[in-house]
Amino acid sequence: HTDRERLWDSLMELARLGATPKGGVNRQALTDLDRQARDLFVEWCRAEGCSIRVDAIGNIFAQRPGQEPGLPVVMTGSHIDTQPTGGKFDGCYGVMAGLEVIRTLNQHNIQTKAPIEVVVWTNEEGCRFPPCMMGSGVFTGQLELEKMLAQTDPDGVSVGDALTNIGYSGKAQVSSDHIKAFFEVHIEQGPILEECGKTIGVVVGALGQKWFDLTLTGQEAHAGPTPMRLRRDALLGAAEITQAVNRIANEHQPHGRGTVGVMQVHPGSRNVIPGQVNMSIDLRHFDADTLTAMANSLVELVKDVSQRHGLCAELTPTADFIPEHFSDNCIDAVRHASNQLGYSHMEIVSGAGHDAIFIGRIAPAGMIFVPCEKGISHNEIENAAPADLHDGCNVLLHAMLEQAII
Amino acid sequence: HTDRERLWDSLMELARLGATPKGGVNRQALTDLDRQARDLFVEWCRAEGCSIRVDAIGNIFAQRPGQEPGLPVVMTGSHIDTQPTGGKFDGCYGVMAGLEVIRTLNQHNIQTKAPIEVVVWTNEEGCRFPPCMMGSGVFTGQLELEKMLAQTDPDGVSVGDALTNIGYSGKAQVSSDHIKAFFEVHIEQGPILEECGKTIGVVVGALGQKWFDLTLTGQEAHAGPTPMRLRRDALLGAAEITQAVNRIANEHQPHGRGTVGVMQVHPGSRNVIPGQVNMSIDLRHFDADTLTAMANSLVELVKDVSQRHGLCAELTPTADFIPEHFSDNCIDAVRHASNQLGYSHMEIVSGAGHDAIFIGRIAPAGMIFVPCEKGISHNEIENAAPADLHDGCNVLLHAMLEQAII
Ligand SMILES: NC(=O)NCCC(=O)O
Ligand SMILES: NC(=O)NCCC(=O)O
Repeated sequence: HTDRERLWDSLMELARLGATPKGGVNRQALTDLDRQARDLFVEWCRAEGCSIRVDAIGNIFAQRPGQEPGLPVVMTGSHIDTQPTGGKFDGCYGVMAGLEVIRTLNQHNIQTKAPIEVVVWTNEEGCRFPPCMMGSGVFTGQLELEKMLAQTDPDGVSVGDALTNIGYSGKAQVSSDHIKAFFEVHIEQGPILEECGKTIGVVVGALGQKWFDLTLTGQEAHAGPTPMRLRRDALLGAAEITQAVNRIANEHQPHGRGTVGVMQVHPGSRNVIPGQVNMSIDLRHFDADTLTAMANSLVELVKDVSQRHGLCAELTPTADFIPEHFSDNCIDAVRHASNQLGYSHMEIVSGAGHDAIFIGRIAPAGMIFVPCEKGISHNEIENAAPADLHDGCNVLLHAMLEQAII
Repeated sequence: HTDRERLWDSLMELARLGATPKGGVNRQALTDLDRQARDLFVEWCRAEGCSIRVDAIGNIFAQRPGQEPGLPVVMTGSHIDTQPTGGKFDGCYGVMAGLEVIRTLNQHNIQTKAPIEVVVWTNEEGCRFPPCMMGSGVFTGQLELEKMLAQTDPDGVSVGDALTNIGYSGKAQVSSDHIKAFFEVHIEQGPILEECGKTIGVVVGALGQKWFDLTLTGQEAHAGPTPMRLRRDALLGAAEITQAVNRIANEHQPHGRGTVGVMQVHPGSRNVIPGQVNMSIDLRHFDADTLTAMANSLVELVKDVSQRHGLCAELTPTADFIPEHFSDNCIDAVRHASNQLGYSHMEIVSGAGHDAIFIGRIAPAGMIFVPCEKGISHNEIENAAPADLHDGCNVLLHAMLEQAII
C-alpha cells in the first residue's frame, strides 16, 4: 500500500505554488510558477534515485530503473499546469500518485523487471497556449513539434521561448516505441462515481470530441422602432442553435454531450438588436459514427436557422478528437487491482480529454478515476477525499506492478 | 420655407465636435465636447436675438419673444448628446431644425403672438449617466432633480459635478405650466417610412416600454464528464427565454416588440457548462394593458423555464414607461402642415423613447419623423437625406406657426 499522508502532503505542498485566496491554484503552463513546480518534482524524483530526462516540448521523464535492461517501460503521469482558476487535484494528483508509487517501491525495496517512469506532460490545459494536451500530443506524433513551439500566448510569447525561459527546453530523444503500458490516475471531473457511490472508475475509454466556433451575423438595429418582421437578430438564431445543440446530445444518450460554453453578443446594449454573436459548440460521443452524425446535424441546423433568420453563418471546426477505447490489458489490470484491493468500482467513460488518450493511440493505456466533490473541477473549489485519492493511488501501484513484474 | 443648406451646414458643423473616423459622433452627455456643442448652440441663438436660460439639470431654453406678453410658449427641441458610437442626426437634427425655424422667422421678419422656444434637453441618451431622457424627465417632474444630480458615470463623476465643470449648472426656474405646444422633429430610427416611401411620419404616440434585467444561476460544470440529465445550464434557460421573448412580441403585432440585447455568459469557456447568465429584456407595446400582459407572460415564463432547468432566476424591472398618445391638436397640426406643403406622409408610432414623450405628459406634444437610411441609428453610419431633413424642418415651421400665430 502507498502512504496516504505522504501522498496528501506532497499534493498540498505542490498546491502552494500558485495558490489562490479561494483555495485553488493558478499555475498556467510554462510560467515561472510552472518552473517552480517542475523543479520541485525533479528534486523529489532525484531524491528517490530517478534519472531525469526532458524532451524538446518540455515533457519530464523520471525513471526508476528495472532489473532487466531493455524491457519496455511501465509509465504513469499526468500534468502539473492548471487552469487560471484551477484546483489542487486536476493533473497534479496523477503526477504525485506516480511519485508515491516510486516512493512506496523504494520504501519497501521492491524491484521491478521493467523500468517504472513518471511523466509530467507539458501544457495539458492549453489555456495559455492552445491546444490542450500539447506535450503528450507531440510525444505521440499527434501534434507537430515545430508548430507547437511556435504557438503563442496572448502576450505573443511562444512556447519555444517560454520553455527556454524556464529552463525546460530539453534535448532528450525519448522514444515512444517502448511503452509496455501507460496508466493515468485522475479525478473524475464529473458526478457519476459520487452519484453511484463507487470509489474507483475503471476507465474503458474516452468520448470523441468535435469543437466548433460559430459566428452569426445579422443586422444591428434599434430595439424600439424595428418591427419584429424586419429583424435579423443574431441572438435569436444563436438561441435556437443552443437549444438544438442540447437536443442533438439528448437524442444520443447515454454518451452524447452538447454544450455551448461561449456566447459573445454584440453590441450588447439593452435596446439594440444584436447584430453579431460569436459562440462555441462542443459535441462529444463515444461512438465515432454517432459523433459524425451529430456534427452533420449541427451543420444542417446552422444552415436552416441562419436562412430562416436572415443571418450569415461561419462555422469553423476548432478541435476534433476521435473516441478512444483503452487497451483491454490495461482496463483488466485496473479492474483486477480494484478487486484485489476490495474497492468498489464501476466501468466509466471519460468525458474529458486526458494525456492518456493520446498515449493510447501508440501504446496500451488505461485510466483510473476517483470521485471529486460534486463532480466539480476547473474550479478553485475542486476537492477530493484523501481516502479516495489514496485508494486510487493503490490501484495505480497494483496495476503498474502487475505490468512491471511479470 | 426654411433654408435647406443652412440647416445642413449647421448640422455638419455641430457634427465636427466629437467626430469619429467612421463618420459618426461620440459626444456623450456633459463632457467637454458636449460643452463645446452647447456653447455653439448658445452662440448661434444669441446671434438670432434669443434670450438664453439654463435650468438646474442643464436644459438650455433659447427664446424668441412673441408679440403678446404672457402667452404660453410654442416649444421645440431635442438633444445634442450622442451615443459613444452615435451618428450626426439623432437629437441634433431636432435642435438644429428648431434653430432653423428661428432663423427663418428672423430672415422673413415674421412675428408670432406666442414666444417660440428651442430647447436642448440634457442627457437624452443616458449612456454615460442613466437613465435616458434625464433633462426632459426632470423638467416634467417624472424624474427627481436631486436624485438625477447624484447619478454617476462609470468613473464616479456625478451629474451635478459634471454640469458645474462644463458651466451648465443653471439657476433658471423654467415653468413647465405655460406650454402651448411642444414639437420634436427626429429621424425615425426605424425602417418604416423608407419601406413605405413616405417623407413625413405623423407621430401619433409612442410605445410603452418595460425593461428587465434577468440573472439565471445554474451550476458551472465540465462540458465533457457532466451527463446531460445532471446539468443546470444557465445558457440553455437563457436561450429558451430569448426565443419566448420574441414569441411574446410576435403574438402582439403590429405594435409588439421584444428584444434581448445583453447576454453575458459566465464563465464563458468552450468546455464549461455556463453557470450564470446575465441578460436584458426589453418589451414594448402601444397598448398599456397588452404591455402589462406581455410582462406577465414573461414573469410566468421565467418561473417555468428556471424550474424546468433547475436554475435560480432574479428578474428585476429596470425601466417602465407607459405608452404615450400625443395630443390631437399637435397631431393635426403636423398632418395639416404636411398636407399644406404637399409632402407624402403617414401616421406612425414611435418605437423609441424621446424627450417629447415626457413633455406630452404635462403639455400638448407631437412629433415629426423623417426617414433615415435603412432605419439605422445609434450607429456611426446613421444617415439621412438633406431633402428629407429640409421637408421635416418645413413641417416643424408650419406646425409651430399655426400654434404660435393664432
Ligand atoms: N481533462 C480536461 O479537463 N481536459 C480538457 C479538455 C476537455 O474539455 O475534455
Ligand atoms: N430615441 C432613443 O434612441 N431613445 C432611447 C430609448 C429607447 O430605447 O427607446
